Formats: sequence, C-alpha cells, structure tokens
Amino acid sequence: MAYRVVPLTRLIEQFERLPGIGKKTAQRLALYVLDLPQHEAEAFADAILDAKKKIHKCAVCCNLTDEELCSICSNPARDKSVICVVAEPKDVIALERTHEFNATYHVLHGCISPMDGIGPEQLCVKELLSRINAGGVSEVIMATNPTVEGEATAMYLSRLIKPLGVKVTRLAYGIPVGGDLEYADEVTLKRALDGRSEL
Amino acid sequence: MAYRVVPLTRLIEQFERLPGIGKKTAQRLALYVLDLPQHEAEAFADAILDAKKKIHKCAVCCNLTDEELCSICSNPARDKSVICVVAEPKDVIALERTHEFNATYHVLHGCISPMDGIGPEQLCVKELLSRINAGGVSEVIMATNPTVEGEATAMYLSRLIKPLGVKVTRLAYGIPVGGDLEYADEVTLKRALDGRSEL
Repeated sequence: MAYRVVPLTRLIEQFERLPGIGKKTAQRLALYVLDLPQHEAEAFADAILDAKKKIHKCAVCCNLTDEELCSICSNPARDKSVICVVAEPKDVIALERTHEFNATYHVLHGCISPMDGIGPEQLCVKELLSRINAGGVSEVIMATNPTVEGEATAMYLSRLIKPLGVKVTRLAYGIPVGGDLEYADEVTLKRALDGRSEL
Repeated sequence: MAYRVVPLTRLIEQFERLPGIGKKTAQRLALYVLDLPQHEAEAFADAILDAKKKIHKCAVCCNLTDEELCSICSNPARDKSVICVVAEPKDVIALERTHEFNATYHVLHGCISPMDGIGPEQLCVKELLSRINAGGVSEVIMATNPTVEGEATAMYLSRLIKPLGVKVTRLAYGIPVGGDLEYADEVTLKRALDGRSEL
C-alpha cells in the first residue's frame, strides 16, 4: 500500500495541469500551499474564484477587464483612431510595458489555426470589424506573433479591412536589440535586410 | 494610466509568491486559470481549500494525512521497529518511490537552523522521543538532507536517542548512481572513499 493522501494528490494534480508545471514542481507547489497559514491559502483560492467571476471581455476591444470598458478604452487620452490587433491579453501587457504606444488595442483571443479547428468565427473578429465600420479608425496595426498562425491571421484580417479604406500595417521584422547576428536565423536576417532603413 | 485589472493582478501576485515562480510565469499561469471553464477553476480553488482543511499531521509519525493515522503507520505489514527520520513530507514521497523501504517514518517538519531561529522545539522532536520511549524501536535511520542544517539535526537527534539504547544510523554518502567522478565534489569523493565496500 503506497503512501497516498487523497486531498494532497488532488491538489498536486491541479497544479500539474498548469502549463510548464511538471510532476515535481506540482508537488513542491502543493506542499508549499499546504504550509501557508489558513488565511493565506484562503486568499489564494479566493483570488482564483474572484478573478474568474469578475473578469470578462471589454465591450469595445475584447481585452480582459473587470469593468464595462477596460482602462485603455475608457481613457480619453488614448488615440482611438489607431487599433493594434493582438492575439492574447498577455500581448497587451507586453506592449504596454514599452510605454510607447498611446492608442488602443483589439484582442482576438487566439489565432486562426485550421489544425486546431480554430477559424475566424471563434475569434473576436466581428467585434473588430464593427469597430472599424463604426468609423473614426485610420490605421490598424497587426501585432500577432511572427508564427505561421499569427501571419495567417494578419493576412486574413488585412484582406477584410483594406477594402474598408483603412490603412493596415504590420510590426517590423528584424534582428532583436541586443541579439547576435551569428545566432539570427536566415529568415529573420533576410527580413532585416529587406526592411533596412537609411542612417 | 497603465493597463491594470485588479482581480487579475491579485491572482498574478498569488502565483508569484509560490516558490520558483517568477513574474512572467505567474502571469502565464494566472491567464491560463482565467481561461479554464468555470467548473475547472472552481475545482482548483476547491482543491486548495479542501487540502488545507482535511490534511493534518499523523498522530504517530507527524507525516501529512487526512485520517487519524497515515497510511504507512496504519499499515500492519510495515515494520514498526525501524523509524526513518526525514525533514519534510516530500522526503517520504521520495523514499517511498524506491519501493525498498518497508518500515515507518518520522517527519520533523524542518531542520534545526539557528540562523532562521528554528530550534528543536519548533520541530516534531518530542513526538519522535515519545515514540522511542514507548518501546519496540530497534533502529532509527537519520535521512535528513546532507546539508549543514540536516547534518546538525541528525547529530543532535543521535545524541538524544543513543542514550536510550537504540541504534542510530545515517544514510550512506557517496557518488550518485549514473554520476560522473569528474564532476563529483571533493567532499563527496572523500566520503565515497571512506565508505568503500568490498566487492
């Protein structure tokens, strides 16, 4: 008869389902949570339920928010004529970290991926189109990941949006700052050459 | 005004407190949990509360259990005359994985560490002594980690237990199986030489 504590095993299994968490890490996390004082463990469980209950999609940009509009869409200082289209909420967090972008976003919540059975209708595409149709939009920046799915999604959307008379742009490709030419792959280097600018 | 969703930030902070989880991983985990179906997120929160509520120390060996006695102490097939002393519940899980040990454990829930203000009275030492004083114990195996704190704890306990007329042993030191002599540190190699056995 092996040593097994059902509530502990159940907690380990829950941690094991999280992305990037293996068997050993899950066990360490579960034992850590078990070691927390009662009120801190409750705060953890409560944070999960609370986030799940309160957070939903922004009525305009489909980003995650706990209000009617997210803090970006409801900010009058933001330029509403430019929309930056991203795949996931975490991409908004990454772009906001630059402190350089002062317009709005649109979160698709995924990329087109026929292999996984994800088509445009599973994504927040019609919300984007109705924003553009409502007028006042001069540019849409495609900021999906430079992967096959991200590229396909950007191409698909640009074909839908261009006929509406709106400029569609794409993030620049090139060598990352601080990177090393030696380790850059050929496709990236070719794109960096193609996109060269005058000094 | 930065993009910030309070319930999401709170959940990210909760994940960030876990050992080995940094800012980026915490963000990824929080967004993953947010993406789970409602009942699965509830199952996660429930697993935390349930484990916290039901799991306590075994009345005999201080290991974690959801019953009066843990499944090892309540198993009649286990040899009750040998006690293997470990620092943490995870060490029991590690030793049980060998499928070679058929006696009982005693979990100290820490090691003596004056630097962190942890003395014998914070550990489950008196429970161990009362088990030995109750009689029927022939050997106590010290299986604390081979660190300064683990060694100090093993030394301290052996000085308490030996006068009671019980054999006290320590796990063998040496090169790990599958390891490489080239990368073994000097102390380990010296211990491996000292502990050599006849072929």
